[in-house]
Amino acid sequence: MPAEYLNSRASIDAFIDRFDVFLFDCDGVLWSGEHVFPRVAEAIDLLRSRGKQLVFVTNNSTKSRSDYKKKFDKVGIRAEEEEVFGSSYSAAVYIARIMKLSAPKNKVFVLGETGIEQELASEGVPYIGGTDVAFRRDITDADYRGIADGSLLDPDVAVVLAGLDFHPSYLKWALGQAYVRAGADFLATNIDTTLPSAGTLFPGAGATFAPLVAAVGHEPLSLGKPSQAMMDAIEGRFQFDRKRACMVGDRLNTDIQFGIKGGLGGTLAVLTGVSKKEDFLAADASVVPSAYIDQLGDLVGREDA
Amino acid sequence: MPAEYLNSRASIDAFIDRFDVFLFDCDGVLWSGEHVFPRVAEAIDLLRSRGKQLVFVTNNSTKSRSDYKKKFDKVGIRAEEEEVFGSSYSAAVYIARIMKLSAPKNKVFVLGETGIEQELASEGVPYIGGTDVAFRRDITDADYRGIADGSLLDPDVAVVLAGLDFHPSYLKWALGQAYVRAGADFLATNIDTTLPSAGTLFPGAGATFAPLVAAVGHEPLSLGKPSQAMMDAIEGRFQFDRKRACMVGDRLNTDIQFGIKGGLGGTLAVLTGVSKKEDFLAADASVVPSAYIDQLGDLVGREDA
Repeated sequence: MPAEYLNSRASIDAFIDRFDVFLFDCDGVLWSGEHVFPRVAEAIDLLRSRGKQLVFVTNNSTKSRSDYKKKFDKVGIRAEEEEVFGSSYSAAVYIARIMKLSAPKNKVFVLGETGIEQELASEGVPYIGGTDVAFRRDITDADYRGIADGSLLDPDVAVVLAGLDFHPSYLKWALGQAYVRAGADFLATNIDTTLPSAGTLFPGAGATFAPLVAAVGHEPLSLGKPSQAMMDAIEGRFQFDRKRACMVGDRLNTDIQFGIKGGLGGTLAVLTGVSKKEDFLAADASVVPSAYIDQLGDLVGREDA
Repeated sequence: MPAEYLNSRASIDAFIDRFDVFLFDCDGVLWSGEHVFPRVAEAIDLLRSRGKQLVFVTNNSTKSRSDYKKKFDKVGIRAEEEEVFGSSYSAAVYIARIMKLSAPKNKVFVLGETGIEQELASEGVPYIGGTDVAFRRDITDADYRGIADGSLLDPDVAVVLAGLDFHPSYLKWALGQAYVRAGADFLATNIDTTLPSAGTLFPGAGATFAPLVAAVGHEPLSLGKPSQAMMDAIEGRFQFDRKRACMVGDRLNTDIQFGIKGGLGGTLAVLTGVSKKEDFLAADASVVPSAYIDQLGDLVGREDA
C-alpha cells in the first residue's frame, strides 16, 4: 500500500485518531542540530491536548535523558524526562536488567560520550573508558605489548559498548578490539552511519565505531533503532497496545523500519531529515510508511493552507 | 593445486631457481612490529647471493621509503631505499603521474601519518590535513556550519587520501566526508583492517578510516595490495617478467591474492603473520599459494634440521 500524504485537516485528524501512543524520533523530526523545525511545539501540544501518550525515542547516545529534557526545555517543546527513551538508556537497561552480569566481571568498556556514562551509572553498571582523557593519548610500544600480553586489560570488563564518539583514539580501538577478542560482548547504542546537522550529514555513531567493527570482524548488537531490542524495552517500560501506536521518523531504514518490524499500527514519515519521498514512493521501495507529511508542524495546519 | 611445503634444501633451491625477482611483504614476513624473525637477514643475503632482484612491498603507509630504509638498517637487514615500494609511494605516484591533476585544484586532503606526506611531497603533490595538529581539535558548532555551507572547505582539494591514522578526529572525518560529497576522489593507501604487532592484531589502515567509508557510503580506490594498481606501478618502476617473479607474504587475501591476480609465476606464504596453513590447505580454500614455509629464515635451513 502506498504511503498516504496527509495534506488536509481531515486526513490528519483521521490519522491521529487511529493511535493512543506516538513514538518520535528527534533529530530530523523535531530539529536538526540546533535548528528547531517550524511549529513543532504546537504539533506536540496538539497531540497532548488529544490525550496521546508521547515517547521521544532517540538514537543519539551522547545525551542522557536529563540532558535531553534540558534540550526540550531550551527549545520550548514540552516534554518530561520520563518520556525520553535514548539509545544509551536502552543499552544500560539491556546490560543491567537483561544481561544481569555478576560482579566483579561486570564492567563496561565505553567508546562514547557522557550520555552513555550517565545512563550506565543510573543503572548501577560500572564502566571504564568513555570520556576518561587517559584513553585519548598516543599508543606506545609499551601499550602494544601490554595489550598483546593482557597486562593492560582490566580483567573485569565483560562488555564493550560503543556509541557516537567525538574523541576517537587508536588506543581506545586497540583496547576495544582486545576486550572483544578476550570474550567481551560487543554492543552498540545504535548503528546510524550518518548524523544530520546544519542541514547536511556528518559521521554518525556507526561511522565513529566502524574501526572496531573492522578490527574485530563482526557487527555489534545494537540497542538503538531499528533493533527490536529497543522496542521491547520501550514496551516494557510504557505498556501499550502496539496496534494503537505510531512511529514518527525521518529515516526509512531506522525509524520507519523500526515501527514496521515492531508491528506498530502505523508509521509516519516526515521529510525534514534523511529520507526523501522518492525513496518510499518508488514502485520498488522496500520500506514504506503508512503516511507522510512534509514536516511535523503540518499536523497543526500547513503554512500555505 | 595444493601449496607445496618447502621443507628440504632441495625443494627450497628448486623453488628459488624458478624466479629472478622476489617481492616481499614486510610486516608479518620480515618482522612483527619491533621483533625481527630469526635468520631473516641471512635469507635475504642468500637470495642476493643468487642474483635475485628484491622489492620490499609494504602496505604500511605510516613510513616513507627513507623511513623504511632506516628500519632495515636498524634491524640489520640489507636493503636499498630504491628497493622499497610502500603504499604511500604507490598512492603518490598514482596521484602525480596517473591522475595528473592541474593546479590549483590538485590538493590532497590526507587522513594519515607522515609517510603519506613525505611521499606526496616527493612527487610534488600539495596536501592539507595529515599530521597538522590543527585538525585534531574538537568539532564546534561553527565547524558544522562551515562544513555544511562549504566555507570551511579548501576549494582546491581534489582528492581525499586515507591511510593508517594514529591521530583520528571527528573533525577530520567530517571534512573528508564533505570533500568526497563535493566531488573529491576517495583514495586509500591500503585497506588492511588489521595490523600485526607484538604477536597479536591491532586495527589496520582500513579500520582507522572505516568511519569515512561508512559516512560517504562507498569504498575508496586502494593503491596498496591486493589492488593491481600497485602491481602495475611496481612493474612500471622495476621492469621484470611477471612469470619469473614471486610474491612472498603472510596474508592470503592481500599478499598472496596480489601475486596471483598479478599473474606472477609464483607465490610463497610464510606462517609468521595473519594467515594459518589451515586457511589454504582446506579443500575449499579460495586463495592458495604456490608454496609455503614456516618462516622466511627457513630458506637458509631449518633450525631443527
